[in-house]
Amino acid sequence: MGFFGGLFEFKGYQNPVLVSSVDGVGTKLKIASALGKHDTVGIDIVNHCVNDIFTCGAEPLFFLDYIAVGKVVPERLEAIAQGLAAACRDIGCALIGGETAEMPGVYHGDDYDLVGFVIGVVEKEKILVGKSIAAGDAIIGLPSSGLHTNGYSLARKIFGETPSALKKYYPELGKTIGEALLETHCCYYKQLKPLLPHIKGLAHITGGGLVGNVPRALPRGLAAQFDSRKWVIPPIFNLLQKQGNVDTQEMYHVFNMGIGMAVICSPQDITLLTKALPEARVVGEVIKQAGGARVIIDGTGYRQDKVG
Amino acid sequence: MGFFGGLFEFKGYQNPVLVSSVDGVGTKLKIASALGKHDTVGIDIVNHCVNDIFTCGAEPLFFLDYIAVGKVVPERLEAIAQGLAAACRDIGCALIGGETAEMPGVYHGDDYDLVGFVIGVVEKEKILVGKSIAAGDAIIGLPSSGLHTNGYSLARKIFGETPSALKKYYPELGKTIGEALLETHCCYYKQLKPLLPHIKGLAHITGGGLVGNVPRALPRGLAAQFDSRKWVIPPIFNLLQKQGNVDTQEMYHVFNMGIGMAVICSPQDITLLTKALPEARVVGEVIKQAGGARVIIDGTGYRQDKVG
Repeated sequence: MGFFGGLFEFKGYQNPVLVSSVDGVGTKLKIASALGKHDTVGIDIVNHCVNDIFTCGAEPLFFLDYIAVGKVVPERLEAIAQGLAAACRDIGCALIGGETAEMPGVYHGDDYDLVGFVIGVVEKEKILVGKSIAAGDAIIGLPSSGLHTNGYSLARKIFGETPSALKKYYPELGKTIGEALLETHCCYYKQLKPLLPHIKGLAHITGGGLVGNVPRALPRGLAAQFDSRKWVIPPIFNLLQKQGNVDTQEMYHVFNMGIGMAVICSPQDITLLTKALPEARVVGEVIKQAGGARVIIDGTGYRQDKVG
Repeated sequence: MGFFGGLFEFKGYQNPVLVSSVDGVGTKLKIASALGKHDTVGIDIVNHCVNDIFTCGAEPLFFLDYIAVGKVVPERLEAIAQGLAAACRDIGCALIGGETAEMPGVYHGDDYDLVGFVIGVVEKEKILVGKSIAAGDAIIGLPSSGLHTNGYSLARKIFGETPSALKKYYPELGKTIGEALLETHCCYYKQLKPLLPHIKGLAHITGGGLVGNVPRALPRGLAAQFDSRKWVIPPIFNLLQKQGNVDTQEMYHVFNMGIGMAVICSPQDITLLTKALPEARVVGEVIKQAGGARVIIDGTGYRQDKVG
């Protein structure tokens, strides 16, 4: 048994390394409960977890869930399970089990929690560690479908979380705000897996946004320079910013701003990747780190000097 | 990739099968919160999960946790993490990561949830499936330290969950009821692992008690006959029964009644096992199933005909 940095080396075999991730859906669940729509949150958590381990190049092996409720409502659990099963089936990941806990003193009303746990594997020599990333490499952004599973505390503050508030139709969205907020977290695994030989690094854009997640994929001494004019920020984010009067810095810290996964590649692979991924756009470049800045977002005045 | 019954076969290697488990601490957390003592619940969940996968003969490889809170209280998270780390260290299991979610709209006051995920491995040919179990085999009980992590909804109903109620001293316990209820879940892995060649089956006595858990370890056509006079039921259970006026049937359904793990072995291994495990007692026997009964508990009039 070996252990290094969140990865688990399974000795023997060839050189398999088990990669695991645990995450919760967060307060997106409050939107699902307010609207009584529970068949998508399972998709969210499977896709979130699978994207997470895929940033190391790992393919998912199996998934377990934990659902905690105040009171068991069979149809609701059934709907959640449907989402979990559909997402796992789509990815080819085994849904091998889970636990449902009834804790009336902890979860009140329609509140519940949904947690996912995925185990994947990658051959040791194929782990995406980003060592080959260099200044001049391109950053390709893959579109998100909306907030994915981050920024819901702020979104709920802005739009409220009552059924009537969430059922309000917004022409710029072409749907209700509740529908937009429940858009499922995209899974990038299937489309990116065959392209791995051309990928130097991956960043799953979750809590912390581009600003918080991209630097973690870069070796020391390098920074990410984005040009926000290179991609179209989806209307949901403009609406959130306008309605909540949120400043641009905070927007980029809290939300994915339309990019769900950032792919780092050498310039000569840009054509191949953008051909294979028609919705992807080159959104930035890896640069030498100037001073402390690890993320710069042109077109917004954004310059982030300290990133955890 | 293969998949069968909650176990995941990792092809290649020799014949490793990955075994996983997910579980929460449940409402034992309410007792911890009421008493402001959070350094033992981490031990509970690690030990619970490790015992679970050990019933297949698996050794734990690594563990992840999920902690969801209403508000981050650093000292509390630190105490929880200490418990997780201590238990993992003791077992030799890597604590490779986890997630802390802050969900103020879902978790109120001091409420929180703590979930554990463990991954272990067992060689395929050594999986404890219980096929060799036969009528006449012995059932050896290993003592629990108290309720472990099950039966807390009933216990809280009986004793209350206010700090003052939980600080009441009971002479028969030699401690307060709160201290007794927070006794940590025992881990049986280290003491039983070297004895595996002499063990035919294991049942971790969790929710459902002996009645719910032992039959699952037995092949069809066999039942478990316990003799409740063969072990001393710890005072906490007598106190619960008396104070709550709980009938014996329900006690055996909800609580472990002093047995945390049941070991099934052939009669000729009894001496070896009880010598190696001085606290263990032969508490029952595997018998041919008479009619539908899968569990009989002599000395209590207990006879369980339907077990899930």
